[in-house]
Amino acid sequence: MSVEQNDKKYPEDIFKRRESIVRSYARNFPKKFVRARGARLTADDGSEYIDFLAGCSSLNYGHNHPALKKALMDYIERDGLTHSLDLETDAKEEFLREFEETILKPRGLDYVIQFPGPTGANAVEAALKLARKVTGRTNIIAFTNGFHGVTLGALAATGSEHHREGAGVPLSGVTRMPYDSYFEDGVDTADYLDKMLSDASSGVDAPAAVIVETVQGEGGLNAASKEWLRAIEKIAKAHGALFIVDDIQAGVGRTGTFFSFEEAGLKPDIVTLAKSISAYGLPMAVTLIRRDLDIWKPAEHNGTFRGNCHAFVTGAAALKHFWRTDEFQKEIARKGGVIENRFRAIAKKYGSKTVGVKGRGMMLGLDVKDGAIAGAIVKECFANGLIIETSGPEDEIVKFLGPLTIEDEDLNRGLDILQEAVEKVLSKKLKSVA
Amino acid sequence: MSVEQNDKKYPEDIFKRRESIVRSYARNFPKKFVRARGARLTADDGSEYIDFLAGCSSLNYGHNHPALKKALMDYIERDGLTHSLDLETDAKEEFLREFEETILKPRGLDYVIQFPGPTGANAVEAALKLARKVTGRTNIIAFTNGFHGVTLGALAATGSEHHREGAGVPLSGVTRMPYDSYFEDGVDTADYLDKMLSDASSGVDAPAAVIVETVQGEGGLNAASKEWLRAIEKIAKAHGALFIVDDIQAGVGRTGTFFSFEEAGLKPDIVTLAKSISAYGLPMAVTLIRRDLDIWKPAEHNGTFRGNCHAFVTGAAALKHFWRTDEFQKEIARKGGVIENRFRAIAKKYGSKTVGVKGRGMMLGLDVKDGAIAGAIVKECFANGLIIETSGPEDEIVKFLGPLTIEDEDLNRGLDILQEAVEKVLSKKLKSVA
Amino acid sequence: MSVEQNDKKYPEDIFKRRESIVRSYARNFPKKFVRARGARLTADDGSEYIDFLAGCSSLNYGHNHPALKKALMDYIERDGLTHSLDLETDAKEEFLREFEETILKPRGLDYVIQFPGPTGANAVEAALKLARKVTGRTNIIAFTNGFHGVTLGALAATGSEHHREGAGVPLSGVTRMPYDSYFEDGVDTADYLDKMLSDASSGVDAPAAVIVETVQGEGGLNAASKEWLRAIEKIAKAHGALFIVDDIQAGVGRTGTFFSFEEAGLKPDIVTLAKSISAYGLPMAVTLIRRDLDIWKPAEHNGTFRGNCHAFVTGAAALKHFWRTDEFQKEIARKGGVIENRFRAIAKKYGSKTVGVKGRGMMLGLDVKDGAIAGAIVKECFANGLIIETSGPEDEIVKFLGPLTIEDEDLNRGLDILQEAVEKVLSKKLKSVA
Amino acid sequence: MSVEQNDKKYPEDIFKRRESIVRSYARNFPKKFVRARGARLTADDGSEYIDFLAGCSSLNYGHNHPALKKALMDYIERDGLTHSLDLETDAKEEFLREFEETILKPRGLDYVIQFPGPTGANAVEAALKLARKVTGRTNIIAFTNGFHGVTLGALAATGSEHHREGAGVPLSGVTRMPYDSYFEDGVDTADYLDKMLSDASSGVDAPAAVIVETVQGEGGLNAASKEWLRAIEKIAKAHGALFIVDDIQAGVGRTGTFFSFEEAGLKPDIVTLAKSISAYGLPMAVTLIRRDLDIWKPAEHNGTFRGNCHAFVTGAAALKHFWRTDEFQKEIARKGGVIENRFRAIAKKYGSKTVGVKGRGMMLGLDVKDGAIAGAIVKECFANGLIIETSGPEDEIVKFLGPLTIEDEDLNRGLDILQEAVEKVLSKKLKSVA
Repeated sequence: MSVEQNDKKYPEDIFKRRESIVRSYARNFPKKFVRARGARLTADDGSEYIDFLAGCSSLNYGHNHPALKKALMDYIERDGLTHSLDLETDAKEEFLREFEETILKPRGLDYVIQFPGPTGANAVEAALKLARKVTGRTNIIAFTNGFHGVTLGALAATGSEHHREGAGVPLSGVTRMPYDSYFEDGVDTADYLDKMLSDASSGVDAPAAVIVETVQGEGGLNAASKEWLRAIEKIAKAHGALFIVDDIQAGVGRTGTFFSFEEAGLKPDIVTLAKSISAYGLPMAVTLIRRDLDIWKPAEHNGTFRGNCHAFVTGAAALKHFWRTDEFQKEIARKGGVIENRFRAIAKKYGSKTVGVKGRGMMLGLDVKDGAIAGAIVKECFANGLIIETSGPEDEIVKFLGPLTIEDEDLNRGLDILQEAVEKVLSKKLKSVA
Repeated sequence: MSVEQNDKKYPEDIFKRRESIVRSYARNFPKKFVRARGARLTADDGSEYIDFLAGCSSLNYGHNHPALKKALMDYIERDGLTHSLDLETDAKEEFLREFEETILKPRGLDYVIQFPGPTGANAVEAALKLARKVTGRTNIIAFTNGFHGVTLGALAATGSEHHREGAGVPLSGVTRMPYDSYFEDGVDTADYLDKMLSDASSGVDAPAAVIVETVQGEGGLNAASKEWLRAIEKIAKAHGALFIVDDIQAGVGRTGTFFSFEEAGLKPDIVTLAKSISAYGLPMAVTLIRRDLDIWKPAEHNGTFRGNCHAFVTGAAALKHFWRTDEFQKEIARKGGVIENRFRAIAKKYGSKTVGVKGRGMMLGLDVKDGAIAGAIVKECFANGLIIETSGPEDEIVKFLGPLTIEDEDLNRGLDILQEAVEKVLSKKLKSVA
Repeated sequence: MSVEQNDKKYPEDIFKRRESIVRSYARNFPKKFVRARGARLTADDGSEYIDFLAGCSSLNYGHNHPALKKALMDYIERDGLTHSLDLETDAKEEFLREFEETILKPRGLDYVIQFPGPTGANAVEAALKLARKVTGRTNIIAFTNGFHGVTLGALAATGSEHHREGAGVPLSGVTRMPYDSYFEDGVDTADYLDKMLSDASSGVDAPAAVIVETVQGEGGLNAASKEWLRAIEKIAKAHGALFIVDDIQAGVGRTGTFFSFEEAGLKPDIVTLAKSISAYGLPMAVTLIRRDLDIWKPAEHNGTFRGNCHAFVTGAAALKHFWRTDEFQKEIARKGGVIENRFRAIAKKYGSKTVGVKGRGMMLGLDVKDGAIAGAIVKECFANGLIIETSGPEDEIVKFLGPLTIEDEDLNRGLDILQEAVEKVLSKKLKSVA
Repeated sequence: MSVEQNDKKYPEDIFKRRESIVRSYARNFPKKFVRARGARLTADDGSEYIDFLAGCSSLNYGHNHPALKKALMDYIERDGLTHSLDLETDAKEEFLREFEETILKPRGLDYVIQFPGPTGANAVEAALKLARKVTGRTNIIAFTNGFHGVTLGALAATGSEHHREGAGVPLSGVTRMPYDSYFEDGVDTADYLDKMLSDASSGVDAPAAVIVETVQGEGGLNAASKEWLRAIEKIAKAHGALFIVDDIQAGVGRTGTFFSFEEAGLKPDIVTLAKSISAYGLPMAVTLIRRDLDIWKPAEHNGTFRGNCHAFVTGAAALKHFWRTDEFQKEIARKGGVIENRFRAIAKKYGSKTVGVKGRGMMLGLDVKDGAIAGAIVKECFANGLIIETSGPEDEIVKFLGPLTIEDEDLNRGLDILQEAVEKVLSKKLKSVA
């Protein structure tokens, strides 16, 4: 048993002393935070930060939105159930009703809702289990650069080597296929998938499901085209596979519509949601299931925290507050435009070999082609009061995931900081090359 | 693709119409609950129930305990961070400090704390990954009737056929061994494990870890002896495997001490906690890691909701309120005695072939030897105002998991209801036999 | 890529220079052999050896038996097909007829015969595939110390750590159970298997098959009792699993009857044979399948060398020559008695703590409790003209697998050499202890 | 347990009565064969057939070649060892010497030779195990339409759905990549492989090995270009993976040189050979291992029939007879030209949409684009005295695999029969369309 030593024997700092070295964001943003509101975080030394990370898209309505906060405090105050397993509660009822009326009905969708354990990975595990159960097949098609979670079933579908290597066992049951535009030379990767599934000797077993993100958040803000998504849906169904959209990061308004697949007009068999579905940052996940595919046995996939009533309360309040009209979607479109314009201007200035723009809606990335540069930009931003992170295979994408509710002032201020950081880092780099 | 039809096409009831048929407890306790306090649940029709289920041991301090509620409301009120990924916050700091001072130090334990995703399964997945990473081995020893969660990595270690069949793929990487007293004839199952691991041709691969529950909650309230647990720990270590105690259900006071392994004097390499660690029913899980085994890379095992600050707040408040002195442990011991006496009296009345007593502390089961009888008892209890559940391979154990903080009045009232239900059901059964 | 160096760069010796270091027997018996007849091997230096290894039970009729040799030479001479894929040939026809008339009919067995690739492992792979296909289940029950081959499917069922570690991937799909008398304290391991399969929460998935050797050759000459074998067969069937006897080493007369399971009166669903089925040491394997379980698709399990006609010719000739009457079985019984008596006398002399006797028929082992001692005995035997090998988890069993046709003179001479070697080695050891 | 019934209860015919329905070739060529010489097979009714199947390339020197036959009969006559496990024998010595002198040295190759079990699948299993052992990785890259055997480890690398579905368990440990020219639009599939292995988030784990056939026999006579093969070798090595050429069907002269990779100038780390390596149709396989990668432990991968001395004798005789000079290679080139010209003429006549030509050397296929047409051609050929088979994902390729030693007369006669069959079948088809 060869063991690397954890060298931090009893450091002064309680976090360094008692928390596992697995922590990551805390390394890039080394402050102790004590207060949060909207797009702003305050540290214990009084310093304030604009938050373009927003819980990796878990805080689409910002931190501690007053309408949600009020609903939550009222519920706690009156001793509503906090933890209910899968018992029926008024909190869950309200969430179900609001989800049905405000989300499903207007979109002509007829899903039943499963509340698995309160993590996105759990929603994915439930989706993959159900697809295998429904079809009697075991193979899952997942895509390059996809991210679906780190529990063992979800991890097999995740592309990142960094996470896969943590498994400690070979990951199986998933066939990897190239995402839209994975090859620069214009190869149609949907055709490739179709050929592999049609060829009786390709070695790719008939799949239980195809699981896809419409925009790959962790994978580097890769946005699939509508045409490609429709082709994948069609191919999946033609080959007897369920079509699963993992909408955990891109869903709940992030790309401009509640579901990220609305623009392409998809009708997934299963949809996974987590992150912003509770609206307040509270742990919650759902797996939406085409009604006729709901063949679970009672508790066949369960979890202690599948009835997190606080999350039902804030989740329902957010649906009411933001989604009963079109206003919010328009707002997202407008702000997405603002960000994209700024990003495109930066890209134009440096040329597409140095800076690219990726993503869709308010899920946008600046591709600076190099993890070290992206890291330097993130660091410079933090020094100037902005929290923003990277993604992509080499952490080479600086990604915007700020609250959809962000005030224009905060948005512009943040974009200014970011632009200055990009310029500072790139000018240094260009000098060092010259 | 053969699909069983979900027959509930648009029922009136919103739960039946919109929630997946995977729900289970809601079937046994068909009420809509709207309020909870201590050991009492109130339904929307005003009916009140004593809760001997308590979120399957997630609510060891009862529903909405006033001290915890106050801490939580204060925190929300002052806009403390709700969702913090793994950033440092004052809420997490307080939890770490309290856990170090109140739990680790007095027990001479030096763990670092990982916050994986906020479910027990996630804590187990992290533990198994780390054990495999540390040892470079893949095999895990788990025991008959063990329950460790339903995500794919944890599910492989779980014994229940009902849950395993949901996987949709063969589960691998785990070797199953008999738990303490699995054979009635007094075979020492620790010796068996030792022989299997010592024999170079047994076919049992050298294990990365042995994972064990000291009392198997879902498996039927099987309580391992101190001697057996110590033997297993010793065998694990002798064979180069990590010794993991899954204390998700039995930990946080349930058996009488904070950790369920204190009585046996174990020093596990890894401990998993979830359920009652947040104290208020909020989703939270931790994996405790022997300091020198903490070899994670940053974010190698992560999860969006690993920084659930509300849970840190209530978790810290509970440690302060209940664990700084011995009072609470004495209280658990006293109440555990009350329950056990009542259970033993029932068992004595019917004889050990009809009713047995299982478990430890306030984690006790009446073994009525038959799932149908246990089910009838549970139903009768509910009709009389008591929520209590079954466990065990055939659901043949009626299990007490009521709050550790339950008032004597509620405890006694609940035990009365239970005893009457047992008598009613068993007398019917005895009549039908006669 | 860390690679141990093969240090033998261009040695003089062609075997050392050009053959992989994977070779093993050549290390214990370092001679170049040029001629073989019956139980005798001759080296190029004229030295002669009695062969108690006999191709690990592949040469039950001895080397180059004249009756088989004649049949083979006649066939080759007349240009009978050598390699026929699975075409119909007169050679295969004769084998099928003889097997039906001489083996199946008198025993009341109605198997169809599959010729998989010509190795025992292949027969096992076919058996396990078919069992999984028939039942739709994936789990296989195999036993401690079992040996079933080293291709990946068969290797998963094999117990030996030495071979399992060669896999390079975790082996899955097999649950390991204790063989008869695995525990010294008289535990009934058949009961254990039954309990594990009956318990809905044991974590042992419903098996497609139970695969068992009636005597474990590689595992250390462990001979299961008739009662235990019958219990295992009954348990397998009760749980919907196929009952497979791997008779590759113990079959074809080795234990006294053609099939090793005749004495116990078993009716396996599938039987695997290889080693001595071709009778002349030629590669051949068969999988016998209960007629109604023969649900293969054409070529679903195939192999280039599945129609080795030379092996059909010698195999048929041997059935004719040895199995049409009872004479041969009586002869085996008589010689088995001779060997066992000698072994028991040795064991008696040294006491059961130092030497034990294991096995059945002409498949017998001297258990000297220590691999180093067994190794020394083997070495001493070779120095005196006897080839004999070890088996067992620690190579602690000196095993007799000489030809069933061995002449009394050779048998006695070989036993004398063995006895002297045992005495020499043990007396040295006893001195060194004293 | 749902079981299709084998409906042939006690048919008259011994093959139908006693052989498993898994047989396949016997269905297409329903005669009982009794004699074979060169490229000719004789049935028991005296009818004679030209053999363009030749044991699927196992009989590259034809049936019962007189030079090999003589060597074999002499060896048997003088009681040379038949079965030797891995003992040293004069037969093995001669094979090793001849292989070293005649094959390895002139080609500047320095492999050590492993004799695994005597099947191609076994050679592949050994190769994959060793690659995993050497690299400490588990993933294997295999290609679309590849065929590597049907034991579980080899089967995972095999593309054919028909064979994969026989596994009964999900196959794992292999990532499938597109073979050369898999896409018709000129995509460079080597670039694709390189990108997948270079991308840290592609989800394709770092491979232990890349295994490739230079011409895919079972997969449909797909011949990779030299450039592609060199690129794949380079990519494998650049990514720390072993480069394995599976030369079981294409090796031993079939494509014009002893190894099929000589033309491309490859230096594989491991090479697998079987089929024609014994030269006479006798079961034998070898795994050639780059000297410094030979890190096996003794017997770590073994097999009872790894010392098939008859095969060593005929294998050595063939190397002597055919490979000491260039004559044989020239002969193959000449005959390959004859066949290819005939095939191209046929293709030209019907146009490339109806008939294509595939393959290399004397491993050539007529692609008639439709399994039903190919099947009709095969049937028509047999009716006229020619045995020829199909391959490819839809069995749409009529493949020539006749003996390399075939007499011109037989070759031309066979090609005439084939051409007439093609014309007859295609003219019928064209009529039916018209």
